[in-house]
Amino acid sequence: MVGYAFMGAAHSQAWRTVNRVFDLPLHVRMTAVCGRDEANVAAAAARLGWQEHTTDWRSLVTRDDIDLIDVCTPGDSHAEIAIAALAAGKHVLCEKPLANTIAEAREMAAAAARAEANGVRSMCGFNYRRVPAVTLMRRMVADGRIGEIRHIRAVYLQDWITDPQFPLVWRLQKDKAGSGALGDIGAHIIDLTQFVSGQRITGVTALTETFVKERPLPQASSGLSASTEENGGSGTATGPVTVDDAALFLARLDGGAIATYEATRFATGRKNGLRVEINGSRGSVAFDFERMNELEFYDATEPSGEQGFTRILVTEPDHPYLSAWWPPGHGIGYEHAFTHQARDLVEAIATGGSPTPSFADALQVQLVLDAVIRSADHGSGWTDVEPILAEVAA
Amino acid sequence: MVGYAFMGAAHSQAWRTVNRVFDLPLHVRMTAVCGRDEANVAAAAARLGWQEHTTDWRSLVTRDDIDLIDVCTPGDSHAEIAIAALAAGKHVLCEKPLANTIAEAREMAAAAARAEANGVRSMCGFNYRRVPAVTLMRRMVADGRIGEIRHIRAVYLQDWITDPQFPLVWRLQKDKAGSGALGDIGAHIIDLTQFVSGQRITGVTALTETFVKERPLPQASSGLSASTEENGGSGTATGPVTVDDAALFLARLDGGAIATYEATRFATGRKNGLRVEINGSRGSVAFDFERMNELEFYDATEPSGEQGFTRILVTEPDHPYLSAWWPPGHGIGYEHAFTHQARDLVEAIATGGSPTPSFADALQVQLVLDAVIRSADHGSGWTDVEPILAEVAA
Amino acid sequence: MVGYAFMGAAHSQAWRTVNRVFDLPLHVRMTAVCGRDEANVAAAAARLGWQEHTTDWRSLVTRDDIDLIDVCTPGDSHAEIAIAALAAGKHVLCEKPLANTIAEAREMAAAAARAEANGVRSMCGFNYRRVPAVTLMRRMVADGRIGEIRHIRAVYLQDWITDPQFPLVWRLQKDKAGSGALGDIGAHIIDLTQFVSGQRITGVTALTETFVKERPLPQASSGLSASTEENGGSGTATGPVTVDDAALFLARLDGGAIATYEATRFATGRKNGLRVEINGSRGSVAFDFERMNELEFYDATEPSGEQGFTRILVTEPDHPYLSAWWPPGHGIGYEHAFTHQARDLVEAIATGGSPTPSFADALQVQLVLDAVIRSADHGSGWTDVEPILAEVAA
Amino acid sequence: MVGYAFMGAAHSQAWRTVNRVFDLPLHVRMTAVCGRDEANVAAAAARLGWQEHTTDWRSLVTRDDIDLIDVCTPGDSHAEIAIAALAAGKHVLCEKPLANTIAEAREMAAAAARAEANGVRSMCGFNYRRVPAVTLMRRMVADGRIGEIRHIRAVYLQDWITDPQFPLVWRLQKDKAGSGALGDIGAHIIDLTQFVSGQRITGVTALTETFVKERPLPQASSGLSASTEENGGSGTATGPVTVDDAALFLARLDGGAIATYEATRFATGRKNGLRVEINGSRGSVAFDFERMNELEFYDATEPSGEQGFTRILVTEPDHPYLSAWWPPGHGIGYEHAFTHQARDLVEAIATGGSPTPSFADALQVQLVLDAVIRSADHGSGWTDVEPILAEVAA
Repeated sequence: MVGYAFMGAAHSQAWRTVNRVFDLPLHVRMTAVCGRDEANVAAAAARLGWQEHTTDWRSLVTRDDIDLIDVCTPGDSHAEIAIAALAAGKHVLCEKPLANTIAEAREMAAAAARAEANGVRSMCGFNYRRVPAVTLMRRMVADGRIGEIRHIRAVYLQDWITDPQFPLVWRLQKDKAGSGALGDIGAHIIDLTQFVSGQRITGVTALTETFVKERPLPQASSGLSASTEENGGSGTATGPVTVDDAALFLARLDGGAIATYEATRFATGRKNGLRVEINGSRGSVAFDFERMNELEFYDATEPSGEQGFTRILVTEPDHPYLSAWWPPGHGIGYEHAFTHQARDLVEAIATGGSPTPSFADALQVQLVLDAVIRSADHGSGWTDVEPILAEVAA
Repeated sequence: MVGYAFMGAAHSQAWRTVNRVFDLPLHVRMTAVCGRDEANVAAAAARLGWQEHTTDWRSLVTRDDIDLIDVCTPGDSHAEIAIAALAAGKHVLCEKPLANTIAEAREMAAAAARAEANGVRSMCGFNYRRVPAVTLMRRMVADGRIGEIRHIRAVYLQDWITDPQFPLVWRLQKDKAGSGALGDIGAHIIDLTQFVSGQRITGVTALTETFVKERPLPQASSGLSASTEENGGSGTATGPVTVDDAALFLARLDGGAIATYEATRFATGRKNGLRVEINGSRGSVAFDFERMNELEFYDATEPSGEQGFTRILVTEPDHPYLSAWWPPGHGIGYEHAFTHQARDLVEAIATGGSPTPSFADALQVQLVLDAVIRSADHGSGWTDVEPILAEVAA
Repeated sequence: MVGYAFMGAAHSQAWRTVNRVFDLPLHVRMTAVCGRDEANVAAAAARLGWQEHTTDWRSLVTRDDIDLIDVCTPGDSHAEIAIAALAAGKHVLCEKPLANTIAEAREMAAAAARAEANGVRSMCGFNYRRVPAVTLMRRMVADGRIGEIRHIRAVYLQDWITDPQFPLVWRLQKDKAGSGALGDIGAHIIDLTQFVSGQRITGVTALTETFVKERPLPQASSGLSASTEENGGSGTATGPVTVDDAALFLARLDGGAIATYEATRFATGRKNGLRVEINGSRGSVAFDFERMNELEFYDATEPSGEQGFTRILVTEPDHPYLSAWWPPGHGIGYEHAFTHQARDLVEAIATGGSPTPSFADALQVQLVLDAVIRSADHGSGWTDVEPILAEVAA
Repeated sequence: MVGYAFMGAAHSQAWRTVNRVFDLPLHVRMTAVCGRDEANVAAAAARLGWQEHTTDWRSLVTRDDIDLIDVCTPGDSHAEIAIAALAAGKHVLCEKPLANTIAEAREMAAAAARAEANGVRSMCGFNYRRVPAVTLMRRMVADGRIGEIRHIRAVYLQDWITDPQFPLVWRLQKDKAGSGALGDIGAHIIDLTQFVSGQRITGVTALTETFVKERPLPQASSGLSASTEENGGSGTATGPVTVDDAALFLARLDGGAIATYEATRFATGRKNGLRVEINGSRGSVAFDFERMNELEFYDATEPSGEQGFTRILVTEPDHPYLSAWWPPGHGIGYEHAFTHQARDLVEAIATGGSPTPSFADALQVQLVLDAVIRSADHGSGWTDVEPILAEVAA
């Protein structure tokens, strides 16, 4: 595993747990973790349960006793690491967004397609697909339970930088993060809604905003935990915020649905408010991550006097992934989606399947992000999403 | 009162009730109701409690014993009736949207401004402003409880025409209704969010859609109650739907906020889902009409471990309008907003105040609707909202 | 109508509205209202829309132009007024609880039975039966949608006297009110749960408590609106609270269900928290008056992965009473239950039906209250509910 | 660890995770797991991550390389194992309920008190205390945020045996389980409410019921997962249910609060519905395990127009245990409470503290259960909870 901050901790919990909960044909060994700072990565290895540590990710790629490289770094290093790993015949799990540029993302998708031909698997970490309520939502939509899809409305609302004194962490710098709320959390709702609806966004009109344009330089930070007090320092030095604080866009999808999207870090009081509702001709589904063990389902084929949104508590054995966990009503948490992701990847590797979302899927999300940025940069005009090239999609 | 269908019934309930609940300097007399069909309007008068009825609205305008004309007809006749009434020195309450065209709306606003100079009052019926939870939301925002506004997200979701066999009622015909979901319910969330935020929309990018393009011709209908069975008839004759089923737009407001809006009649399972959330630098407020006696308030100045959305049950004596009603916890219903509207209008007439929303306010909403249509018609490009002309605004 | 405070206002709104909304064979005339204080009752008559007023309730009972007496006084005068009215051949609507003593209640039920034989109708005002969601709940249970009933849990939570300085209003005095939370609000959940379940309570074990035993004497008060500031006066004079602040009991019902009940005026933050849940062998229903336009229904016969509590928005035309009101999603309020009560009573009078709840039904509720008090007074021992005597029940 | 079914799996996840998430002075080694069936326990050891397995729990107690015995068996074997382990100087974590009889519980508490004097720690597994929202609720109550406590209402609602064909698993047999819903889940709400309120139950009046008195004999089952299909077998052989399906009781607490409790396995649609509300003179708190990452708090000292229940999303770094987990809004799940329990026990062992709940605390819960049973068996008469003997409490 490369990287050991927020995502690294979540992935580690998944690798530690996956064989304890699921019956799998392969057993995961947590060989080594990599980071830039020797002391920090050593501590992380001990803490998170990795057998070894290193500061040189290239050394991992060439080791014979490593089969899978898990890339949990910021987006600017994804392409280099993932492509090298794939070239070395290692399976790759790469955090989202796939890359910071379309060019890199295309290269990665091409590398993944080449590797796939050699039985080397790759997967992008859109973890929310593996929240059981989301997987169930996908299943119900695919089963036709809501009919023809008319509307999608998706928001991903956070509020961790509403304080203007919150420091200029890497997630607020374009060169490291690629974009702001858009790529960080907007990418999740793009992937999630496309996954659930089975439709792809074809065009957008968009609007982005940076409310706080200058922030104190940080002293140190990792994950999302950088607080003003810890990082703000003397407050004398500041720097420009080079990414969006919020991104809003309207979209059309290839199956006829129309959609609204909003990703923001300025929705005061909303901590991780990923909410999606889809309305179809026969019913609707709605999900709110702040209540991640619930799915709301409206069945317009029920007798009219008894229709309503049904709060399905997604904790039953016949719900996705849940037969392996606790009895009904005993909910699961955020990191379980990572364990489910690990389970599906391990199973795909063991059985020779093609795990999803593929790098090509993730490239497509990247192309939507790109269309959003282009629309926002050009007066919100309607902007078509570029196609994935045939050689890659194949 | 002119018109006696859905809006006419709601207004009648308000006029009957207003003096029974509120202490007012004037006592309302329900003199006469007007409609096109003699038999129907006679029955409506008896049912709704009007002393007389007529089929000639012009006769009402000239009567000395009538001081106020309440216009509850479809939008295509608003201008003619309201302007005639104002010219005759009658106070006017006009249902929204103010008119079907900008030209008419401008004339009405000009007529209202002239009449105002003579002490004749006019008001547009954006009733949701008078839902106590909305009025409270406005008060809290104006008091600075949420700080500087960053985000507005507003939806108005209905589902009464998802069935393709639902007939082509007047609300689906452009010549009578002006527009579809946009003018009917989108107008409400435009007015409501501008009212609550104290900011005005300056520009938009928009997308509209008509999912069902041809529908059976209706036999008869009124209000929203036209059902397929009642109206669908033989099903042989159909006609084109000439209005939008759904309208989506992004907006910027003059105080720096950015916003998303969605109005649709195809949100399966959402019956009258008017929802508004506003995020500011110090807190947030959220309202859902399906739970109209509640307001959610997030106070970011509370101790961090105790912050959360507070569900204020808006039924306390110190909440707007509610000291006149029932004890705490005994909620009110949809029509109460009309009674509150009647109360405020009667009070303004009695005391010489200027009731709001004025026709100029309603014109401004109309200009936003117009910008939405223009954007949607021109590739969703960014479209500025036209200014209200100086002579009118004054 | 006798009495014009909180209940009088709610009843007046119902009488004014019932013919405006419902098609009924009789038209209600609001002839006269009676109260003890001449000036106050005159003002109330003008305000609430009664043609005349009087301070002598006996004069109403003998008037030929009055057909129905509506008793809205405190419980200590119910028996005398209602029995006199019935004896005079007037139909009677009497507020709950039916009487302050079992003896009075028995006399009233006997008088009602005699009058019924002469075509004179009587009804007790358990208004919550006519909240559409409650009526729907009754209908679904009666239709077998939840199967055999196992559990009932009912609470009625208020908090209007948590302040020890709240004055000693009539509702806190045993001679006027009979009991405290028990008779005032506990009676409602007893009636409601028996109505919905179709079962009657056969025995109880109970616990009551008076948290604040001495309170300031009030200067004036009516309804529930007496506030400390308005009424507390100098604060020097106090008197003993002679009723319960809270009453808790467990019960068995004649159909095999077991139940918990709680009525309290000390549930801080709960304003009118009437909540009932019933669990059966095939499903469950749940209602919360603070969201009175909603009913939750769990259908255990649905596919297991799709089960959940369905939030039915009880605003559809095929829901009880609602075809007369607004379009779907446009909720109603507290007083509408009184209008529905008036509708059903008027219809019963017009058609010769027997309105429910009858005085015998109300007597049975009284007998449950009595068993609760006896159990609480005797170490919470199991206490059977006394039977209604055969002559009355017939 | 002795036992490896539902509780064993949850405890194993906790032991595996605790050092990966929390900084602790001791590092946990998962030495050995014990069960009755050789093959099954071997598989469980491999699956759950234990280094060794055995079928002889006594062998664990005498090993020098084992410091802590974790007892996850049914209640009938708790006393023997725990007392032997304590006598051997091993720290003990014992699942609830502490024992099946008061006599055993008293012996265990005495043994724990003796061991404590020698620095040997013991703790009973009332895991819900370590749900962060519950711990926060405790903290707020202790800090006086809700003032003097008036009311407690607690329910623990499940529905896993509503089907009469569900087999007669060990939890439905008195000799193994001690009691039914009462001891299994009623014990949790007794402990939780006493923990949160800081008050102890002094007396009760109770009612229990067994709705389904005869059930098919099971073929095999573990945890709560036994389903009819898996276990019902031929359906010819049945046996008597010897425990309660539901237990209801009212209680008084030593600080003046009054309370209602309900524990049932027949609340159709409620899967793990542990709900607690506490009303005090200055505010209220409410918790529902089905939304375990939320706490509702009503602050009656806020301005009256802004009061309401605040939904605190208990995922902030300054909430109990959560600085070790994920960013705000990223909720945790059921098993996390076990990890927190492990954390607190390990810390107490390392620092010489006395972990809670102690065996004496658990004995007191047992005494409440005993009073409930005695009351239910004797006509629901008021029944005092027996005191813990002085020698034990000390």
